[in-house]
Amino acid sequence: MSWYNLKGKHLIATKDWSDEDLRFLFDLAADLKRRYYAGEIVHPLPDREFYMLFFNDSTRTRHSFETAMTQLGGHAEYVNPENMRLTLDRVPTGKGESIRDTMEVLNRFGQGLGIRLLSSSVSSYGEATRLVEEFATWARIPVINMMSDIWHPCQALTDLFTLKEKLGPDLRGKKLVVTWAYSPHCRDWASSQETAALAVRMGMDVTVAQPPGYGLSSEAVELTRHYAAAGGGHFQMVDDMDEALRGADVVYPRNWISLDYHGHGKDAELELSAKFKDWSYNRGKRNKLTNRALLMHCMPIDRENEATSDLIDDPEVSILYDEAENRLHVQKAILAATMGGRL
Amino acid sequence: MSWYNLKGKHLIATKDWSDEDLRFLFDLAADLKRRYYAGEIVHPLPDREFYMLFFNDSTRTRHSFETAMTQLGGHAEYVNPENMRLTLDRVPTGKGESIRDTMEVLNRFGQGLGIRLLSSSVSSYGEATRLVEEFATWARIPVINMMSDIWHPCQALTDLFTLKEKLGPDLRGKKLVVTWAYSPHCRDWASSQETAALAVRMGMDVTVAQPPGYGLSSEAVELTRHYAAAGGGHFQMVDDMDEALRGADVVYPRNWISLDYHGHGKDAELELSAKFKDWSYNRGKRNKLTNRALLMHCMPIDRENEATSDLIDDPEVSILYDEAENRLHVQKAILAATMGGRL
Amino acid sequence: MSWYNLKGKHLIATKDWSDEDLRFLFDLAADLKRRYYAGEIVHPLPDREFYMLFFNDSTRTRHSFETAMTQLGGHAEYVNPENMRLTLDRVPTGKGESIRDTMEVLNRFGQGLGIRLLSSSVSSYGEATRLVEEFATWARIPVINMMSDIWHPCQALTDLFTLKEKLGPDLRGKKLVVTWAYSPHCRDWASSQETAALAVRMGMDVTVAQPPGYGLSSEAVELTRHYAAAGGGHFQMVDDMDEALRGADVVYPRNWISLDYHGHGKDAELELSAKFKDWSYNRGKRNKLTNRALLMHCMPIDRENEATSDLIDDPEVSILYDEAENRLHVQKAILAATMGGRL
Repeated sequence: MSWYNLKGKHLIATKDWSDEDLRFLFDLAADLKRRYYAGEIVHPLPDREFYMLFFNDSTRTRHSFETAMTQLGGHAEYVNPENMRLTLDRVPTGKGESIRDTMEVLNRFGQGLGIRLLSSSVSSYGEATRLVEEFATWARIPVINMMSDIWHPCQALTDLFTLKEKLGPDLRGKKLVVTWAYSPHCRDWASSQETAALAVRMGMDVTVAQPPGYGLSSEAVELTRHYAAAGGGHFQMVDDMDEALRGADVVYPRNWISLDYHGHGKDAELELSAKFKDWSYNRGKRNKLTNRALLMHCMPIDRENEATSDLIDDPEVSILYDEAENRLHVQKAILAATMGGRL
Repeated sequence: MSWYNLKGKHLIATKDWSDEDLRFLFDLAADLKRRYYAGEIVHPLPDREFYMLFFNDSTRTRHSFETAMTQLGGHAEYVNPENMRLTLDRVPTGKGESIRDTMEVLNRFGQGLGIRLLSSSVSSYGEATRLVEEFATWARIPVINMMSDIWHPCQALTDLFTLKEKLGPDLRGKKLVVTWAYSPHCRDWASSQETAALAVRMGMDVTVAQPPGYGLSSEAVELTRHYAAAGGGHFQMVDDMDEALRGADVVYPRNWISLDYHGHGKDAELELSAKFKDWSYNRGKRNKLTNRALLMHCMPIDRENEATSDLIDDPEVSILYDEAENRLHVQKAILAATMGGRL
Repeated sequence: MSWYNLKGKHLIATKDWSDEDLRFLFDLAADLKRRYYAGEIVHPLPDREFYMLFFNDSTRTRHSFETAMTQLGGHAEYVNPENMRLTLDRVPTGKGESIRDTMEVLNRFGQGLGIRLLSSSVSSYGEATRLVEEFATWARIPVINMMSDIWHPCQALTDLFTLKEKLGPDLRGKKLVVTWAYSPHCRDWASSQETAALAVRMGMDVTVAQPPGYGLSSEAVELTRHYAAAGGGHFQMVDDMDEALRGADVVYPRNWISLDYHGHGKDAELELSAKFKDWSYNRGKRNKLTNRALLMHCMPIDRENEATSDLIDDPEVSILYDEAENRLHVQKAILAATMGGRL
């Protein structure tokens, strides 16, 4: 048996997948992308059904997954869970159907399930991820995390796939700066922390910069430190954007909620973040401090706040839209490998 | 011409289909299920479009129909009627498009229409079913009742198909108990009454048990008595769950609304049903009274109320998830036979 | 290179397409319709993805486009923009993603984008169309106007295609009356004015009739006059329905909002239109005044107000459902030509 059999495997976070799994996935994504650009029709998932439960808004995730299933020969169902019988309460009330019973039924109908569930839909940090894991507990089909309140594996895999395209296959020693940036939008940190962790795992030198109170979650920090200690790249956290940017090859400026978000609520959050409006990435900082750094971002990007438009719209600097496109190719690989898999 | 040509036929209730129609349908469903498990791609409905109008929430019905159309080679459109121009008023107001004009247009675009419309969306008993029939009046494509306030033919057909799998092809003399059970969810009775009627029609001995005020509707009772008189199985109604359970081969414990639901409203309904919290099915009752009965249910099941979880989760007892899965296979047969049909 | 290469072309309004483009499109639509009626499966758009952004309700447009993509071998995504990250504000707020960034991402995933955005979603006349044009500015995939507050090209093309079927390929000299009609529904005028303009362009004699205050927009009127001057048919505007109807070959009675709609709001609009309840088309008017005129309408039609049901339901008079069906065939041609196109 091959050492990278992903058939039937969940993807809640990349930490659950082996290095071999990831190498196989990147190879498959590159292969599918090449064949797509050669106009080849490739249907590894004929008639397969992928259910997408979106508890939260989405542009890239919904469209890339739904398009991916079309291109793989199957079909994706866009589901607003409000139109289902499902309740997320542990003691089912109201509509009355538990996660378990919902999952047992989807097991019988389809071949895969994606779930998006963010901080704004739960009352404590990590609860969204635990709910996704609860689905997976009862699943006999692969459960794909389409972004939770801790992890965003599809984004992280896409980010690293894109960096390999841009910087070459060996990312060791390249410096990635993931920096908090001001925005009134109170974004989740799942992308920031999973991309940082995966980059260290793949040998990059990662610096996370954030103002006081905006550290990433302890489990993300511990995981990233573990990767650094286990032979990955370097990892450090600093509280100064300029210091972080020095020598950067890639900069990822991104707003995220503070550690106290669920405690103090949205109004206090906006008041706190407003103190750090100067945490914005612009051309002056890039020219002065970085190694002609690429600008990456999971999008939506808050123009002028997170980064200035002159950088975002400079094709020599910005790789945003290439990243967005690669969501499609990487997710096609994830779906083909987990829902289809070896013969 | 064959005696079971279902091409273009509506399915509002199983009573409208002949015994030959049903035999053909069960054979086709069994055939499609076998081929599905053999991994065969079967496309009797290439490029066909099935519109699904969901006036109410759904898990099993939506996912099984949408998946069915994918597997048959066509496409199902999930439609929230609020996003259409349609009005259900007899004198069109507001959005302004009548059932007739809506149907005349769908006739021209697609090959089939499914409608789900429950008690909670109408103001008197039977009105939902009459609205579905009004669509059918103007339809030149098959109209499939995806559950109305009187009938749920797809569930009833699935239930009997599943019982044949579990108990053997000849169901005559087997005892099915359809019992009211407490739940605060005020469920519709369409499943209960159509499954009871169809079971008697197919020769089962059916006992319906309910507390005072919770009888099934007169038209369901009359139809079921008619089937019993016409050579089907026995049928009786009792007001005691224990008495009903004696010797049962299959138990279907299900909450449903009272006969006065539309008259007295939801609050009075909850007050009334709360008097009968002991109407719950559990292992003690099963062991003491039944013939090692199977537990069936259309789902969502209200755990601990309608039945206790130790029964629901016992694979020797519960056939819930098998029933759910069979929705897919039976509906594939319905769609293939009505939207496609003989060459 | 052919003179009618539509590959990658937007369709915001028919005025942007050349006469050769239109001839090619009508030929293609007729060809696809014939093959459809011969039961031929035709897949010029295998695996292609068409995104449909519906800011407003729809019956014909949604179902005809989604069905069209199925029949062409691809897939249409129904999108309620509220479930996206998109904001239409020029200075992005709230969800925070601009039209540009949204479009840049959709460019990377799919092969076409449809947008429906009506008067009721914007605050001034023409704003909806400008927003559709803004999407097109950033698009590298075809943007199809699925009805805006000025134009409805898919409806107009369908209307003229249908008239060619009914009256013969040469429409020159045939008289079309587009008349305002009373309805409390405050309909948009996009269909009325684009159909009128295109009919003149194709040589028909068009009379638009409306009460005071209900003229079509100045840009529609100017465009239509331009077509008349440039060798199309005759064009006149009158304020009397009876006068307009004299000798009509086709009558299109349709409610539309007044020129002041955005200024005075919906209540004043209803008060104004109520003065003209006698602007209704009926059999008496048809028999007395017209040349046994056909009745056409984009639907939804307000029965008894815009026209009486005895006309609508008379197959010798009404071509409504044929028009509706032709939406499917004409849009298949539009999609195939713009999203696929020549090899």
